[in-house]
Amino acid sequence: MPIITCDIRNGRTREQRSQLAMGLTQAVVEATGCDLHDVFLVIREMPGFNFVDGGDHVPDYVPGPNGLDLAAQEQVKTRIERTSND
Amino acid sequence: MPIITCDIRNGRTREQRSQLAMGLTQAVVEATGCDLHDVFLVIREMPGFNFVDGGDHVPDYVPGPNGLDLAAQEQVKTRIERTSND
Amino acid sequence: MPIITCDIRNGRTREQRSQLAMGLTQAVVEATGCDLHDVFLVIREMPGFNFVDGGDHVPDYVPGPNGLDLAAQEQVKTRIERTSND
Amino acid sequence: MPIITCDIRNGRTREQRSQLAMGLTQAVVEATGCDLHDVFLVIREMPGFNFVDGGDHVPDYVPGPNGLDLAAQEQVKTRIERTSND
Amino acid sequence: MPIITCDIRNGRTREQRSQLAMGLTQAVVEATGCDLHDVFLVIREMPGFNFVDGGDHVPDYVPGPNGLDLAAQEQVKTRIERTSND
Amino acid sequence: MPIITCDIRNGRTREQRSQLAMGLTQAVVEATGCDLHDVFLVIREMPGFNFVDGGDHVPDYVPGPNGLDLAAQEQVKTRIERTSND
Repeated sequence: MPIITCDIRNGRTREQRSQLAMGLTQAVVEATGCDLHDVFLVIREMPGFNFVDGGDHVPDYVPGPNGLDLAAQEQVKTRIERTSND
Repeated sequence: MPIITCDIRNGRTREQRSQLAMGLTQAVVEATGCDLHDVFLVIREMPGFNFVDGGDHVPDYVPGPNGLDLAAQEQVKTRIERTSND
Repeated sequence: MPIITCDIRNGRTREQRSQLAMGLTQAVVEATGCDLHDVFLVIREMPGFNFVDGGDHVPDYVPGPNGLDLAAQEQVKTRIERTSND
Repeated sequence: MPIITCDIRNGRTREQRSQLAMGLTQAVVEATGCDLHDVFLVIREMPGFNFVDGGDHVPDYVPGPNGLDLAAQEQVKTRIERTSND
Repeated sequence: MPIITCDIRNGRTREQRSQLAMGLTQAVVEATGCDLHDVFLVIREMPGFNFVDGGDHVPDYVPGPNGLDLAAQEQVKTRIERTSND
Repeated sequence: MPIITCDIRNGRTREQRSQLAMGLTQAVVEATGCDLHDVFLVIREMPGFNFVDGGDHVPDYVPGPNGLDLAAQEQVKTRIERTSND
C-alpha cells in the first residue's frame, strides 16, 4: 500500500497532473510488484515562491511549448553557470 | 522542484528501491517537463502493520519470485472476494 | 506529541472539518494515553482531481444530505462493480 | 480518499497502534461521510528525542498501566508549572 | 540532502516567507554540516482553521506591527490562563 | 502553530539533532513572530540510500571533524565537476 505525495508548483494543467499521477503510479507498480489498486497518491500544489532549493526561491511555473517548464529551465541554466564559475 | 515522498513497507531490496526511485523521478520529468536535477525524493519505510487501508492493517512485505509481493496479493484477493459477496 | 496530517478534498464545511479534527484528536488521546494538549493536527485541502486512488482520479467532493459524500459513493460503487466483473 | 499520516514516538504496542488506526479511520468516516474503504493511513515512528515541542525534546515513550504515557504526563506537568509561574 | 516541510497559516508576506525559508535553510546547514545547495524546502499554507492544537482550532493569522502575530498571541494568552486555572 | 518536518539521513548525534531542532524552531519564531511554544517539529531519519537527488542516491552520512558531512561533500564535488563538463 504505497502512499505517494508530490509537492509541485501551481499551474500544471489537468492533463499534466494526470500524466504525472499515472507515471508515478505505474513506476510504483513496476518497482514494487504491488497491485495497481493499492497505490494511493496526492498532488499538493503551492506557488513557486514557496519552494526553496539551496537557498533560492523557485520561480513560478511558466508553461512553454510541449509542457516545457521555461522558468525552471532558466534557473537550472543560472545554477550551472554559477557552479562553473565557482 | 518537485518533492516526492514515498511511504512503503520495510523489506524491499536496494535494487527495488533504486528502481522505484528512478521510475518516480523519470515520471516527474516526463509529465512536468522539469529538469532531472530538480527532482528530489525520499523513500520512508515502516512495518506493514503501520499501514492501514480501509481499516485493515497491511501484512508485512513477503518477497516472491521476480519481486512479486505475495502478502499484498493475498490481501487484494481477499478484498475482491469480500467485495463480491457484499 | 503526536502530529497528525490529514489530506482531504476541498469543499468540506467548517463544521465538518471541526468534527474531523476533534474526532482525530480524541482517537489519538484514547489510543495512546497522551494528553489532549499534546496532539497537533493539520488538515490540508486539495481538489479531488489531485487525489489518485489505484490509478483513478477522485471526483471532486459533492455534498449530499447529512454530509454524505455523493461523488465518492458513486466511485466506490463503480469500483465494486468493476471488481465483481473481474 | 482521505490520507492520514500520524507521526508518533517509538514503543507503542501493536494493540495500541491498531486502536489508534481504527479510531482515526472511524473519525474520518464519521466526519466526512466517506466510505471506510477510502481511508488510507500510515503511522510513522521515531524516537521521542526526534519530536520537539516548543523547543523541548519530547522524552521517549514510557508505558504505564492501561497504556498511560508516563513520560509525556511528566512533561505536561512541568509545562503547566512553568506556565503558571510565568 | 535534508528535505524540510513547513506547514503554516495563510497570510504571511513574501518577505516573511523568504526570511522563514532562509532561516530554516541556514539552521540545517549549521547543524548538519551539509552543503547549502543540498537543502530543499517547501512551505505549505492553509487557513488557520485547518490547524488544530490540543483540540483548539488556531485563529487565522492577523498581521500586527513588525510581523507580530496578533491572533496567536491572543490564543497563547488564553491557553496560559486556562492552564493556570486548572 | 507551524509544523516543521525534517527528513534527514541516519547517523547524526543527539547533539546535532538538538542543534538542528533548536535552529529550525528559532528560525520559525524569528520569521513568523509566533510564540516559541507554538512551534512543533519532527525529525525523520532514513538511510542515505532512500534519498534521491536528481536521480542519484545520496551516500550514507559519514561524520567528519566538527560534524562535517564527508559523504555529501564528495557528492557535491562530483556534481559540480559533472556540471562543469556538460
